[in-house]
Amino acid sequence: MTDDLDQRMHFAIDLARRAGELGLKYFRDLDNLTIESKGHQDLVSDGDREVELFIRAAIAEAYPADGIVGEEHAPVTGKTGHVWVIDPIDGTANFVRGIPAWCVAIACARNGETVVGVIHEPSTGETFHGRLGGGAFVNGRPIKASGASALSEGSVGTGLSNRADTEHVAVLISMIMAEGGVFFRNASGALMLAYAAAGRLLGYIEEHMNAWDCLAGMLLVEEAGGTVLKADPKTVVSQGTQVIAGGSSIFPKLRMLCAEAFGNAVST
Amino acid sequence: MTDDLDQRMHFAIDLARRAGELGLKYFRDLDNLTIESKGHQDLVSDGDREVELFIRAAIAEAYPADGIVGEEHAPVTGKTGHVWVIDPIDGTANFVRGIPAWCVAIACARNGETVVGVIHEPSTGETFHGRLGGGAFVNGRPIKASGASALSEGSVGTGLSNRADTEHVAVLISMIMAEGGVFFRNASGALMLAYAAAGRLLGYIEEHMNAWDCLAGMLLVEEAGGTVLKADPKTVVSQGTQVIAGGSSIFPKLRMLCAEAFGNAVST
Repeated sequence: MTDDLDQRMHFAIDLARRAGELGLKYFRDLDNLTIESKGHQDLVSDGDREVELFIRAAIAEAYPADGIVGEEHAPVTGKTGHVWVIDPIDGTANFVRGIPAWCVAIACARNGETVVGVIHEPSTGETFHGRLGGGAFVNGRPIKASGASALSEGSVGTGLSNRADTEHVAVLISMIMAEGGVFFRNASGALMLAYAAAGRLLGYIEEHMNAWDCLAGMLLVEEAGGTVLKADPKTVVSQGTQVIAGGSSIFPKLRMLCAEAFGNAVST
Repeated sequence: MTDDLDQRMHFAIDLARRAGELGLKYFRDLDNLTIESKGHQDLVSDGDREVELFIRAAIAEAYPADGIVGEEHAPVTGKTGHVWVIDPIDGTANFVRGIPAWCVAIACARNGETVVGVIHEPSTGETFHGRLGGGAFVNGRPIKASGASALSEGSVGTGLSNRADTEHVAVLISMIMAEGGVFFRNASGALMLAYAAAGRLLGYIEEHMNAWDCLAGMLLVEEAGGTVLKADPKTVVSQGTQVIAGGSSIFPKLRMLCAEAFGNAVST
């Protein structure tokens, strides 16, 4: 089974890099990119769609009986219990405007549990990867989540979700700063989760993320020795989850801030 | 005079790239970086200091009678009316933690007016440059500030200053989101100003920036057809300034938000 997972992991690493190359072709030719709005501050381009089709075709060829869930096209039901959960371009708002902080995110889940996670940032050539029980890496080097225990020791990544009250984010930021922390938002949630896994950020918080944005990064944080708010394996792939992820010593603090800022008890 | 400025501009472009190469050497060897705290959430590394010395030595050789003001070493008084204002590594918090969003910022001011501005991001290989009256460019291609007139059309970069009330930033972010906007903070103010010049962000706001963080970027925004809150030429190099910069159509809105969030009438 581990061999099988290792195979899927190496497949995902290679695929994310190839998908990133394709994404870069669109990124370098933004003047000819077709951009549409999917909703308030929610954009999609032909780059997103074409890169997702490229990833889907590669998965269908290598693992034809697996399921696929992606941001831009309809889900494919599989028969193996494995579901690939993919975001061809995480950080589309950056991508379409020329900001280099965007990434390809590929996760593989088995019965709702993430077993492989890859996040590749084409602009910098960094590939983060992890396998359940196998550790987390960037470009092959092991990474560790932050060991800090106070918010004053670093930055906390924050996201904005269309599916949550924006005022909650302002409250969260205010609370982070009141404790001597600073916030960071480069508008790619997957990338910020990867940075949290690598200890570059203390952690990452978003009130609601879709599965394709968060599964790969959440596995990376756990495999890097960090802690994440556990998602419900029955619903996470189809409905997404609240995301609190970070170094294990700072995690209780992050969780407490979220409980207060989001105005509800955090589910376990 | 224009020839002279052009010469300084080309000198600054080349210097920023060479300084960036040196910075990358430290960035790729973070395990051996010496990091010190200069104050709350304010770090400096031997990378910052050494890159600044490298830049200073190049300026002293090419323009020995010019003044120099940099973030990490004492100012040099000049005799020509020209002062080089340099930040060897803008985004030090990113740099020391391995986040690739940091840049070298080099400006040249003449009697308090910025005449040359260069911002170079080594991780992505982008060099933004501008000369007073000569336009703004990224890697040689002309750039334009955003033409948007509503906050719902993009993102606004925000910074945090140790020299201002952090609660003001939370209020500003709350107001931006209430108007349908989103905020962006990659923790390199100079880089976000360059992104605003390129229309990638609607604009950039920080209640107080030091001269080495903002002069190059403010010139870029203006040369890209945007609008900036004018700094006082008598004090900006030594004392810094409030920064509001962005596309000309969105600028009045940004300025109104700042007046409210920062709790004081914005000076002209």
